[in-house]
Amino acid sequence: MTWRLAEMTTDQARDAVRESPLAIIPVGAQEQHGGGMAMSTDSVRAVGLAERVAERLAGRAVVAPAVNYGVSPHHLEFAGTMSLSPATFTAVVRELVDSLSQHGWRRFLVITGHGGNNPALSVLAQEYVRSDLVFAWTPFTSVVADLIDGVSEVHGHAGEAETAQMLYLAPDLVQVDRLEPGATTLDELGPVARLARRAGGPRVSVGFDVYHKRGVLGDPRIATAEQGRLLVETAADRIADFAEELLSA
Amino acid sequence: MTWRLAEMTTDQARDAVRESPLAIIPVGAQEQHGGGMAMSTDSVRAVGLAERVAERLAGRAVVAPAVNYGVSPHHLEFAGTMSLSPATFTAVVRELVDSLSQHGWRRFLVITGHGGNNPALSVLAQEYVRSDLVFAWTPFTSVVADLIDGVSEVHGHAGEAETAQMLYLAPDLVQVDRLEPGATTLDELGPVARLARRAGGPRVSVGFDVYHKRGVLGDPRIATAEQGRLLVETAADRIADFAEELLSA
Amino acid sequence: MTWRLAEMTTDQARDAVRESPLAIIPVGAQEQHGGGMAMSTDSVRAVGLAERVAERLAGRAVVAPAVNYGVSPHHLEFAGTMSLSPATFTAVVRELVDSLSQHGWRRFLVITGHGGNNPALSVLAQEYVRSDLVFAWTPFTSVVADLIDGVSEVHGHAGEAETAQMLYLAPDLVQVDRLEPGATTLDELGPVARLARRAGGPRVSVGFDVYHKRGVLGDPRIATAEQGRLLVETAADRIADFAEELLSA
Amino acid sequence: MTWRLAEMTTDQARDAVRESPLAIIPVGAQEQHGGGMAMSTDSVRAVGLAERVAERLAGRAVVAPAVNYGVSPHHLEFAGTMSLSPATFTAVVRELVDSLSQHGWRRFLVITGHGGNNPALSVLAQEYVRSDLVFAWTPFTSVVADLIDGVSEVHGHAGEAETAQMLYLAPDLVQVDRLEPGATTLDELGPVARLARRAGGPRVSVGFDVYHKRGVLGDPRIATAEQGRLLVETAADRIADFAEELLSA
Amino acid sequence: MTWRLAEMTTDQARDAVRESPLAIIPVGAQEQHGGGMAMSTDSVRAVGLAERVAERLAGRAVVAPAVNYGVSPHHLEFAGTMSLSPATFTAVVRELVDSLSQHGWRRFLVITGHGGNNPALSVLAQEYVRSDLVFAWTPFTSVVADLIDGVSEVHGHAGEAETAQMLYLAPDLVQVDRLEPGATTLDELGPVARLARRAGGPRVSVGFDVYHKRGVLGDPRIATAEQGRLLVETAADRIADFAEELLSA
Amino acid sequence: MTWRLAEMTTDQARDAVRESPLAIIPVGAQEQHGGGMAMSTDSVRAVGLAERVAERLAGRAVVAPAVNYGVSPHHLEFAGTMSLSPATFTAVVRELVDSLSQHGWRRFLVITGHGGNNPALSVLAQEYVRSDLVFAWTPFTSVVADLIDGVSEVHGHAGEAETAQMLYLAPDLVQVDRLEPGATTLDELGPVARLARRAGGPRVSVGFDVYHKRGVLGDPRIATAEQGRLLVETAADRIADFAEELLSA
Repeated sequence: MTWRLAEMTTDQARDAVRESPLAIIPVGAQEQHGGGMAMSTDSVRAVGLAERVAERLAGRAVVAPAVNYGVSPHHLEFAGTMSLSPATFTAVVRELVDSLSQHGWRRFLVITGHGGNNPALSVLAQEYVRSDLVFAWTPFTSVVADLIDGVSEVHGHAGEAETAQMLYLAPDLVQVDRLEPGATTLDELGPVARLARRAGGPRVSVGFDVYHKRGVLGDPRIATAEQGRLLVETAADRIADFAEELLSA
Repeated sequence: MTWRLAEMTTDQARDAVRESPLAIIPVGAQEQHGGGMAMSTDSVRAVGLAERVAERLAGRAVVAPAVNYGVSPHHLEFAGTMSLSPATFTAVVRELVDSLSQHGWRRFLVITGHGGNNPALSVLAQEYVRSDLVFAWTPFTSVVADLIDGVSEVHGHAGEAETAQMLYLAPDLVQVDRLEPGATTLDELGPVARLARRAGGPRVSVGFDVYHKRGVLGDPRIATAEQGRLLVETAADRIADFAEELLSA
Repeated sequence: MTWRLAEMTTDQARDAVRESPLAIIPVGAQEQHGGGMAMSTDSVRAVGLAERVAERLAGRAVVAPAVNYGVSPHHLEFAGTMSLSPATFTAVVRELVDSLSQHGWRRFLVITGHGGNNPALSVLAQEYVRSDLVFAWTPFTSVVADLIDGVSEVHGHAGEAETAQMLYLAPDLVQVDRLEPGATTLDELGPVARLARRAGGPRVSVGFDVYHKRGVLGDPRIATAEQGRLLVETAADRIADFAEELLSA
Repeated sequence: MTWRLAEMTTDQARDAVRESPLAIIPVGAQEQHGGGMAMSTDSVRAVGLAERVAERLAGRAVVAPAVNYGVSPHHLEFAGTMSLSPATFTAVVRELVDSLSQHGWRRFLVITGHGGNNPALSVLAQEYVRSDLVFAWTPFTSVVADLIDGVSEVHGHAGEAETAQMLYLAPDLVQVDRLEPGATTLDELGPVARLARRAGGPRVSVGFDVYHKRGVLGDPRIATAEQGRLLVETAADRIADFAEELLSA
Repeated sequence: MTWRLAEMTTDQARDAVRESPLAIIPVGAQEQHGGGMAMSTDSVRAVGLAERVAERLAGRAVVAPAVNYGVSPHHLEFAGTMSLSPATFTAVVRELVDSLSQHGWRRFLVITGHGGNNPALSVLAQEYVRSDLVFAWTPFTSVVADLIDGVSEVHGHAGEAETAQMLYLAPDLVQVDRLEPGATTLDELGPVARLARRAGGPRVSVGFDVYHKRGVLGDPRIATAEQGRLLVETAADRIADFAEELLSA
Repeated sequence: MTWRLAEMTTDQARDAVRESPLAIIPVGAQEQHGGGMAMSTDSVRAVGLAERVAERLAGRAVVAPAVNYGVSPHHLEFAGTMSLSPATFTAVVRELVDSLSQHGWRRFLVITGHGGNNPALSVLAQEYVRSDLVFAWTPFTSVVADLIDGVSEVHGHAGEAETAQMLYLAPDLVQVDRLEPGATTLDELGPVARLARRAGGPRVSVGFDVYHKRGVLGDPRIATAEQGRLLVETAADRIADFAEELLSA
């Protein structure tokens, strides 16, 4: 038995509407992740997390095929990055939810491996406030922010935590010898980049080339698969708990 | 002399492009704020804050006319609420920025009095990452979250902090005798509403009628103008500091 | 008691749906008005007129918060002008009407202080022809065109009538010593501008910089508050009469 | 030699860019015109007028193929009426102008036989204010409003003037024995319809089924081909004069 | 009696809904057709074919006014070509179908004289798969591809078959002495153009200026009215047969 | 070394722009494929074919991550099918091409495993006719239509050829014991379905539930992996040949 809609036949999907009332949609990105990580990192992480959440839900959830592209304008200065506009990305997720709702699904959980998708998902969530569908979404790393330790003052994209997760989930997509540090201290950042990193107040966005010439925040070289396992499995636990509450609500 | 674009002549605006390089756009909402506060609360607060920030910048900023409507689908169950779609709200702000950029402004700060506008502003901010414009935006209350004290376990919309701000900024728009408590403890919330209040993990949005039959979070009766002064003036200080850094960057 | 939706609580709005069946939405503009008038002139005039109409209707109408921006591409050559596209302006008004109709309002009157909004409002009006909503809209000055006297051969934007209205409605937004004449005779206009002024036949539009280097039509220096009072109060009378007929239809 | 772009080869069009600098686009409608007139009346009239204007311009203008459909929501209650949305109609005309401008045309005159197209054309005209293209448009009957005589108190759609024009331009599309009077006096109109006919003040739109059960304003039976000739040929004279001025401007 | 909606009154249209359940919409193009054929060739052919199909259906079909413009970006390098975007063209046809469906028509047949409209019509057809409307469309020449003989190795746009059809349908729109051969053999084509002509595999599109400097495929000089008659009348026979089956389905 | 953009780092992508000038984008679908095949069949086939084409091009092509969803309204009656609208699907592919073109790619080949994507891709191809990008696309099975043998009179979706391809490419996604015949003869089809299958003339589209209650055309039980190998490898050969010509053009 599988929870992957991609692998199911239509007959299996018909049964799943009844037995697996939560539909999980993993969304990622195709964008630069520094000198040593594959550009599909965020898609790989989203799928890896989605499947672990589904496993924990033991048949009560299905996982849709991944949306392999996300909103990545802030990485387009780096070769190979591919980006959807927020409007198109939003339309894609809306139409996938709409398709599944036609078959009877009523509860949705989008798992994004890419923080650049958060704003569009937040906007989309507002559309469902007045519908009879329940639309939830979750980021990945921030769900386990309390567990990240030993990181640089500045860290984040393609840094310690993401690299650790990839070393655990898909080590063959990490070229360890090519990992190199990005910006690791606030002192290294220019003034606007520093403002962009500040939390809890006014916000300004910059391209990742403004942060650092390699587009990396933090030092991926210190990442370990063991730290990755902790982040991934705990995130899966916590999101599964959330999903259980959603299903029993 | 004024910093209000609404009151300027075109000649004054022509001078302001040179002397006042930051353009501040206050955006609010027209939506229910419980039994005792005016529906324009978020617009009033946005304008009040924007003007205080401009004062502190002493001629280096202009304030555009307010956008009196925001993204408020989660309040539409309550009479009098008026909402723009995220796409329309985004288009409005984009076109205002575009207009001012044609006259020479390059730095923008949107001040929103309404949290429902945050997702759309976050999406819009992504559009400017690759432009030569600097687009910053700021919420209000969360900038001074550390200063709010004595509040209920559950608080927020039309609660202690917003009411305090209004008692300070526009006391005639608060009908004190009609203030009444909304949901104040997590125990009062239904299961999905409780999930929606949880921070730092997966997210789900609900209409404010799901939170509480009066659409209020917290107990506005304990609000004071003195607490309001602290929140408003400190927020203005902090945002002005941010703006100074942006201008000197 | 108030007729302003901005100042009402949601409870008051709930009552107003029943008692005040007409919803008035004032729409203005932020655009150059020559050397002596504030750029918010059209918004100020729209609000001033809307409130006077509501007063005359004595509780049978509510006034929504102003839309402070309009369709002003023909003034964008002048510093400080801010313009919405027709599509965005139309979407704003449509969504405001839609919001209010969800609460039970069925009759709408948009009062525009800016002629550049007329085409978009005319298009929008076509959408409601087949609905159960009644959507009316009105310009300002042309409602009392018969009362304007002593004006130049060419007059209009930022000229005698608009200045008079502002001297009556908001004298502090008129810098009388900076008022200066614009184009006042057809002879002063270039050939296309002259075609653009011709009434009753083929139409061509030009930017206001093509009309006159200061973007003014007429001589605002001869405006008086007394003439303004006549224009404003008579327009309010006539529009209120229209509204009464609409309400009793 | 022809002025019709439809009949030209591409080589002839290439020459016409140089010799015939004005591009005329006739736009009509497919909508009910009472019991005796063909539904293509407005298209036929637009083409008839456009060709007469082109004749008078003696080679200095070309006429594009007709846009046979217009904005006709107010007639959709009557069988056979076909309507484009304002947005689609606007896009069509914009793209036709854009196509011709790629070949070198810079001056455009849209001739509409249908008043329902006026709002969309007015909006579109605003887009060209800041371009290097000159975009003019003209209605038909109102250009010669001073020449209409002997009409009913209420007249207009499918009434005396339009029928006269058709008797002159395309008598085979008028089934004279089926002509029948519509609403001819204000007393016959309901209260909203009466408001909708009032000129010079607030405006409200109604479907033509609200005006009269046959959707006709005026009494087409008194129309004559001779009156039609006067209206058509004089309108052509006046519009050609306007076009001459535009070309020499 | 007529089958042309353009010539009908609304009363006749009301009857036709019942008696003539198939609505035919001819769509064409305004685009270069080489040195000797009018730019309206595709519109003329679409109308000519639509009317012949309607004749054969003997009162069971109506023909709507022609859409005189199509999707022609690949001809825009040639003077006089006018093109709608696929999105606008699609919206036009969708809104025409929608209008007629409001009056009761349920079966639609779009006849296109221009192959550039095929992709947009194919997309539109997908929209109707789940509706209760039957939306069919047909090209022209490919319906009788088996009857074309004696043509060049390369043939098509403005070539033998189209010219023959025009010599039969509208000989006055063919300037026979200006007909000239275009590309007639694969050897004359550049490499990408040759790939674009290849059938049954991967597809690439090129502008017609890439095919040949005159934008013609084939040798129109050998076309005859007799061949045109065969192509036109047989196409009408076959499409009418199809329509009969659709009507009796 | 890899040709997969998903697995590359940004540095590898930067090199690939120069060395691998063709960018291949596989697009599929998530839709019912009868009782025995996985719903991701079209995505799996598109990726399998794309990778084989890239292999043959030996480093001159890169393969982007798959677009896992396509245009599938005609399958939405079957549980589990998920569909993008043509407009959204088109926007996705357009933005992916745009992203890659920003990095320097100029030649694109979209490989679709799903025929329902063909119309949208045909429309999109028209947009590139006037650009400096070369946009090609290819279907799968019809490229090797001449090699399919022993099939039913009616065959196609989820039938002999697709099943054979899957038995070769991803046998674990075929549940052989659940394969069952769909419609295999024209006699089994209803009248509209029969019209929809007819080639070379007028076209009408139907949902796959209209074709057959199981949405299958043909008899998948006779498919063999050996036939699949022939279809897949020959299609790869032919498309690679096409790509070689495109690259050397």
